[in-house]
Amino acid sequence: MQRESFSPEGDRAAPISQSLAEFVAGTAFETLPEAVVHEVRRSFLNWIGVALGAAREEPVRMAARVMAQASPAPQATVIGHRLRLDCAGAALVNGVASHLYDFDDTHAASILHPSAPILPACLALAEHLDISGDAFITAYAVGAEVADRIAAAVTPWHNEAGWHVTGTVGTFGAAAAASRLLGLSPAQTVHALGLASTQAAGLREMFGSMAKPLHPGKAAWNGILSARLAAEGFTSASQGLEGRRGFLAVMTPDWAPGPLTEGLGRTFEMVRNRHKPYACGVVTHAAIDAAIEARNRSIDPARVERIDAYVHPLVQELTGKADPRTGLEGKFSVYHCIAVGLIDGRAGPAQFTDTRVSAPEVVELRRKVHLVVDPTMGEEAARLVIHITGGGVEIFAVPSATGSLDRPMSDQALEEKFRMLVEGFVGPKKTQALIDAVWSLGSESSMRELARSIPVVEEI
Amino acid sequence: MQRESFSPEGDRAAPISQSLAEFVAGTAFETLPEAVVHEVRRSFLNWIGVALGAAREEPVRMAARVMAQASPAPQATVIGHRLRLDCAGAALVNGVASHLYDFDDTHAASILHPSAPILPACLALAEHLDISGDAFITAYAVGAEVADRIAAAVTPWHNEAGWHVTGTVGTFGAAAAASRLLGLSPAQTVHALGLASTQAAGLREMFGSMAKPLHPGKAAWNGILSARLAAEGFTSASQGLEGRRGFLAVMTPDWAPGPLTEGLGRTFEMVRNRHKPYACGVVTHAAIDAAIEARNRSIDPARVERIDAYVHPLVQELTGKADPRTGLEGKFSVYHCIAVGLIDGRAGPAQFTDTRVSAPEVVELRRKVHLVVDPTMGEEAARLVIHITGGGVEIFAVPSATGSLDRPMSDQALEEKFRMLVEGFVGPKKTQALIDAVWSLGSESSMRELARSIPVVEEI
Repeated sequence: MQRESFSPEGDRAAPISQSLAEFVAGTAFETLPEAVVHEVRRSFLNWIGVALGAAREEPVRMAARVMAQASPAPQATVIGHRLRLDCAGAALVNGVASHLYDFDDTHAASILHPSAPILPACLALAEHLDISGDAFITAYAVGAEVADRIAAAVTPWHNEAGWHVTGTVGTFGAAAAASRLLGLSPAQTVHALGLASTQAAGLREMFGSMAKPLHPGKAAWNGILSARLAAEGFTSASQGLEGRRGFLAVMTPDWAPGPLTEGLGRTFEMVRNRHKPYACGVVTHAAIDAAIEARNRSIDPARVERIDAYVHPLVQELTGKADPRTGLEGKFSVYHCIAVGLIDGRAGPAQFTDTRVSAPEVVELRRKVHLVVDPTMGEEAARLVIHITGGGVEIFAVPSATGSLDRPMSDQALEEKFRMLVEGFVGPKKTQALIDAVWSLGSESSMRELARSIPVVEEI
Repeated sequence: MQRESFSPEGDRAAPISQSLAEFVAGTAFETLPEAVVHEVRRSFLNWIGVALGAAREEPVRMAARVMAQASPAPQATVIGHRLRLDCAGAALVNGVASHLYDFDDTHAASILHPSAPILPACLALAEHLDISGDAFITAYAVGAEVADRIAAAVTPWHNEAGWHVTGTVGTFGAAAAASRLLGLSPAQTVHALGLASTQAAGLREMFGSMAKPLHPGKAAWNGILSARLAAEGFTSASQGLEGRRGFLAVMTPDWAPGPLTEGLGRTFEMVRNRHKPYACGVVTHAAIDAAIEARNRSIDPARVERIDAYVHPLVQELTGKADPRTGLEGKFSVYHCIAVGLIDGRAGPAQFTDTRVSAPEVVELRRKVHLVVDPTMGEEAARLVIHITGGGVEIFAVPSATGSLDRPMSDQALEEKFRMLVEGFVGPKKTQALIDAVWSLGSESSMRELARSIPVVEEI
């Protein structure tokens, strides 16, 4: 949530849209830092897993049925389904799937989830146009960079005003990536970014409903529309982002110019992309880490008398639901998170179903959890003091949660997450083939082949 | 721009989305006031003319080519073209066409242009589902009512903050009308309105670019998507409009609850719908009226020495461009408007081309126009004092412009406008057949037949 890597100052009169457009159109694959290229592969792997894992869920199937009514042109794959739709329609459905589990990635200097709106747009167009892996990586890198920077510029005001940054700012990322894949000139890209400005939408009021994952889906759709219109010569304002009545002025009057263009093309926000090991809000992750650590050290849940969980105040504020009734509510209950961490040793989608949330042993254990709010603790830290029945106390302290910038998920941990999400549906062989395809993504890869190799898990 | 018919007070905690949804789902055609039914026919006629007139323009063809890439399902007619697209795609293109000439209608208590976002959604779905004329009228009446009321509730703050109300609020109107045509229950309609809330977009920064007419096109598209998703069971927040982080709070913190539900179902804003006789900003219309009146009284432009135009300050502020270079700039030049009024006796699209704006006799006459800003004049009034070469002064005063609420365009004047827009492309016989079809719109009408009877004016 900090914008620590940018100066708060900057030139508000600088031609921001133009600079971003030149970056999008002009950045060569060869000039991308290796860390960026690698993070694109990581993001892509994580995203396929998340989206394929959610492919059978009802909101995804609803969105797919609507898109199929609208657009049967079989240009691009709907992940996990036999259905192919036009690029924008497929991107919309895949965007819903990407964000449905709240299990996607997060940009550290904002709370943007870059992959959910941008990768669906990239994959759909890359499949349709049969782009190489290099070009795909470049398009995603510049698209995510544009979105990450705009998100940093509007943090925290935009979010506090009630906007869902993944919907609003995601639109710019999808438009930038799509502009790049369609080979737009900087002048056309300025128009695409302008068209993105005026379509950017998404309200936090929707949190807790299916409309939340619709936001990145619509951002992907709007981004592709923006780039396709600009490719036809359709115009927008030349400063849709920074103009007097543009996106920044209207939707975040208190924006900071620094993040937008400072070091653009030299430093990449992609390297500060975070991945979630657990399918719930980031603030619970240190407590889950500690609970899993306790389980790995053979703490028996049946012998736990009481758990005192020392956490930052934000943990209680955001996830203080003591007695969750549904899977969704479970994601907002650090009590439940600690219980499943200790019992199951994981916190994936299976831990946030209605069934698991009401399982007797889980309910019993979470009632033994007591929150101790401690303002001196870091947001990403937690300490569990576990009292054992019949005497004895064990302490598990986590200074930085897995997935934080201090302790990023390893490539191997990301692979394991991917397996957890998809192996059950598609088997180990196809799972490994996908993992290999993503790690080896490069000039030899056909994105069409890759997209069409994603297994079908269910018919609509 | 006034909200004079509503109390400024109201209950912010009332279930607004629910009330609007019940109105949308529950209003019967038989209970619609005759004035509403008639105004729907007028709006529909005016809208077909405006959209068919613009059908050959490049931004419309660009949008159509993009939609054709995206969605070749031949469900609904693109006005003026042989192309049929899926409902939402056709509605997007027709929405662009509707607003391209700035010649559409205006709701008096706001500055919403209701037909441009809502009628394209209605016609596309009505054609696809082959709805009767009655059901079509009802859907448009409730959709426009919802949009008019929300627009009144956010006037003037929303507009002043930089939002283009036809894009943002138009989304609700399209969603409401589409919900009605798809037969959604009130509960489903609440979700459709919530999905509209979170997709509502459109920035005033875009004015002067093609993105402005894209706004109603996107509003129509988003409205259809919202209703189709809700029909599938897709959910949104239950108070997307009025919730703490909903559309009103985030996009117009200073909204007024009165207009939203006061008298809902008993009084209709449709009867305060205004139509433009001239293809330019409303503030110039009284001056154009006066200039046309002067021409009708045989004032010879060649003998004019000087014209003193007494106008409200807003006229200079919004349309004070003394030396326009393009057709678009001509719309923002009351000087040009007065000149073509006096020379051509009209101010249709033909008066706002690049060619007409640089015609020597027009340029010469408009240089003789002098603005006299007079704060005591009404916004809808103008007085031209014309000095004749060799002596003599003629005065033409217009207290209320044609098309104002005090002096609405007659049905006959609306027919003449329609003929001016389309007769040149499709001939008098087809023009008259369309006029007759709209005036007789009712239970016997097949909307599919009507939509498919709209003549083709050009291939994409």
